[in-house]
Amino acid sequence: MPSRYSSSNSMIGVYEAIDRNKTKTLEKIKEIIRQPSIAATGLGIRECATLVSGMMQVAGASTRVLDLGDGASPLVYGDFRSKSNPEKTVLFFNHYDVQPPEPLDLWETPPFEPQERDGKLFGRGANDDKADVVGRLGLVDAFTEATNDIPCNFKFAYEGEEEIGSAHLKSYMEKFPELFKADAVIWEGGAIDPKGRPEMLLGSKGIMYVELLAKNAKTDSHSSIAAIVENPAWRLVRALNTLKKDERITIPGWYDDVRPFTKKELDLIRKQPYDESAIKNDLGIKQLIGGMRGFEVKKSLAGKPTCTICGLVSGYTGQGAKAVLPKEARAKIDFRLVPDQDPEDLIVKLRMHLKKQGFPDIEILFSEGEKAARTSPDSEIARAANEAAKDVYGKPPIVKVSAAGSGPMYLFKSPVAAIGGAGRFSRAHAPNENLDIHWFFTGLKWIANTINLYSNS
Amino acid sequence: MPSRYSSSNSMIGVYEAIDRNKTKTLEKIKEIIRQPSIAATGLGIRECATLVSGMMQVAGASTRVLDLGDGASPLVYGDFRSKSNPEKTVLFFNHYDVQPPEPLDLWETPPFEPQERDGKLFGRGANDDKADVVGRLGLVDAFTEATNDIPCNFKFAYEGEEEIGSAHLKSYMEKFPELFKADAVIWEGGAIDPKGRPEMLLGSKGIMYVELLAKNAKTDSHSSIAAIVENPAWRLVRALNTLKKDERITIPGWYDDVRPFTKKELDLIRKQPYDESAIKNDLGIKQLIGGMRGFEVKKSLAGKPTCTICGLVSGYTGQGAKAVLPKEARAKIDFRLVPDQDPEDLIVKLRMHLKKQGFPDIEILFSEGEKAARTSPDSEIARAANEAAKDVYGKPPIVKVSAAGSGPMYLFKSPVAAIGGAGRFSRAHAPNENLDIHWFFTGLKWIANTINLYSNS
Repeated sequence: MPSRYSSSNSMIGVYEAIDRNKTKTLEKIKEIIRQPSIAATGLGIRECATLVSGMMQVAGASTRVLDLGDGASPLVYGDFRSKSNPEKTVLFFNHYDVQPPEPLDLWETPPFEPQERDGKLFGRGANDDKADVVGRLGLVDAFTEATNDIPCNFKFAYEGEEEIGSAHLKSYMEKFPELFKADAVIWEGGAIDPKGRPEMLLGSKGIMYVELLAKNAKTDSHSSIAAIVENPAWRLVRALNTLKKDERITIPGWYDDVRPFTKKELDLIRKQPYDESAIKNDLGIKQLIGGMRGFEVKKSLAGKPTCTICGLVSGYTGQGAKAVLPKEARAKIDFRLVPDQDPEDLIVKLRMHLKKQGFPDIEILFSEGEKAARTSPDSEIARAANEAAKDVYGKPPIVKVSAAGSGPMYLFKSPVAAIGGAGRFSRAHAPNENLDIHWFFTGLKWIANTINLYSNS
Repeated sequence: MPSRYSSSNSMIGVYEAIDRNKTKTLEKIKEIIRQPSIAATGLGIRECATLVSGMMQVAGASTRVLDLGDGASPLVYGDFRSKSNPEKTVLFFNHYDVQPPEPLDLWETPPFEPQERDGKLFGRGANDDKADVVGRLGLVDAFTEATNDIPCNFKFAYEGEEEIGSAHLKSYMEKFPELFKADAVIWEGGAIDPKGRPEMLLGSKGIMYVELLAKNAKTDSHSSIAAIVENPAWRLVRALNTLKKDERITIPGWYDDVRPFTKKELDLIRKQPYDESAIKNDLGIKQLIGGMRGFEVKKSLAGKPTCTICGLVSGYTGQGAKAVLPKEARAKIDFRLVPDQDPEDLIVKLRMHLKKQGFPDIEILFSEGEKAARTSPDSEIARAANEAAKDVYGKPPIVKVSAAGSGPMYLFKSPVAAIGGAGRFSRAHAPNENLDIHWFFTGLKWIANTINLYSNS
């Protein structure tokens, strides 16, 4: 049975194959769930990489298990060549590692013993991201069974460190650049909203995280001496205060490279549903910054560069009063970035700014950076996914121009679309993680249709 | 033998008595050191109060052991009436409690087994403040033996909580105001400088200590949401920044009640020795605030109101990066005060200021206050002490107009002079605390001479 909304004749055979292979696909998902692969501890990572590589080989891929050594999880790579359309390549990027299963006593069935009930498959990684690892690879079979070919070249890059911040992904991509070359990338992710609309995510913010240190005396002193000895806590507070005025970052040149949203992106942001009272209830707050609402909220989440104090510490932080002059004060600050801001440029601007404002002594203890990513909704892959969803779901997807958070999406030079996710009360990262089986297979059809449209565009 | 510098015939007999009673006095000091009296733990406090009260009775006083109960240490009170001059009363204020002796392994001889060696008496409390407790009481005998009277009425108030911030002194003084009435107060304290000059301390700064709290969401959140949710750490930083500009506190009216130094006080500050490089070496710093030096340093320590961040804490304070939006931020702030600033007035000004600056939501979690004290160097007791020192030491004392720190001196309505201390490498609060026996008895002669001159003025 093809998807009930399907009207594309060329895809009917593929949809039928996806449905026909359902049990086989679910069995493979269970098999891979049974193999723990916890990046945080390393448990089962190598075994899982071997398992995934084997599945790729069975599907007929040329595979490589890339390994940087030195504690890095292997990255499993495989590719399939299209006979009819070898000029175009789509890369599927997913991860085979999972979050630790703790707390174990909250699981209704053991995390690594997958179980189906009520239309859902329970187990650690069921949703995030082992079903995708298996399901997207399974599209090779579905296309081949239906059309004796795949619509373009497929590449699969499955990393094993997503849950620990994709620690070595950049190194893998720098060491094996040719393997990651593609015309478009299909990413994991996305949810199904209460009205059954799927989500397409086209970008993520960047981040620059720094720790600032102001220091003076070699030890904390009695605070009576503050009459004559400079207080690094005051110095830090003053320096911080030069970074931001109201909601605007005041470091010269900070916004120079900010790419404005296009009219189309703004329209998409406007259309995005969001539940303000859910946010407020969740956080226990009465209003958002400056009482902002609606479009402004959505636009800020997708595209406002931020400067956030994530941590502050100085002097005495226990109960009650202690009259100390602190020897040092520290602030951890997270700058969220948007395209085309570059952390390597911004760290220099931050340093220059502190110097010019009279704080050359404030040390930047470390800094970590990731750029933002933003695929155009007019890119071929995004347009194909948009059309393909109408066909599969009977409605267009909710398009998220950018996540509020950051990620490694920026590492890919080609357009990236995160589609086909089945997230819905899925408890990713939590006990009783589960996969909604119906929405998962529907998502696979969306991806198949997207690739089909994209390959023929 | 009278002091070698003495030229006052009327005092020769008293000095002779002090010297004659030296062994007896030292034995009593040892006896009281043998009785531990640790305010922090309560160990031996009551036993020591009884011992001190007994010594007062033996000396012929009417004594009272005041006890507020409820965990307060008793306050031992005694008075002696002058036959010839019952119109004037001097109060000796000291304390019989001591700091805990730990770390014990660093003591060369056990802390509660006093031992004389190299002209010093070793033991916990030898310097701070048990020798004074015994020695000042002993002046009754010295005057009586030499003159058959005391030069004015003597009162002794010996508290048992000095080492824990004189926790109940204010309550004792409010409950028994008549006992603390005097024309002048002789306080503990003071050191002997490297050139053999004694110190007279005439004041202390006040303090107002507050904790500020800014809060928003009910838990820490993922920092990506900072684009739309207010960050209490930023709020606190901004609020703090309104409290002070450079070295000036910007809360309206903060300096309204500041009593300027008199010309004489400024002269005394100018004359005060101080060792800038010792301060810098001790703290490991290259310069003081704004490169200040000399007179400005001494004046700031004695009389600059300060606003010191003693503690800051918010969000993630561990190693490395964690992208959180903190739910709250706290600052502990110590305002040092000068005469005639009043913490009860200033807390209102702080609250008003925060409100006017747009921070009505920032909570003041608690506040503690003590006023400053400053006895005029032109007061009779200070002038008497100044003259008396010339007689005993052959030179005037170093007059410290005010300590940089705070204390309960302000509770006394009459002029207070802290004189006669023998501190010199004395290791108060530390292992191997000791009393310099020579300077201690010289200090007693200074006090005796001071009272003699004061009584006859």
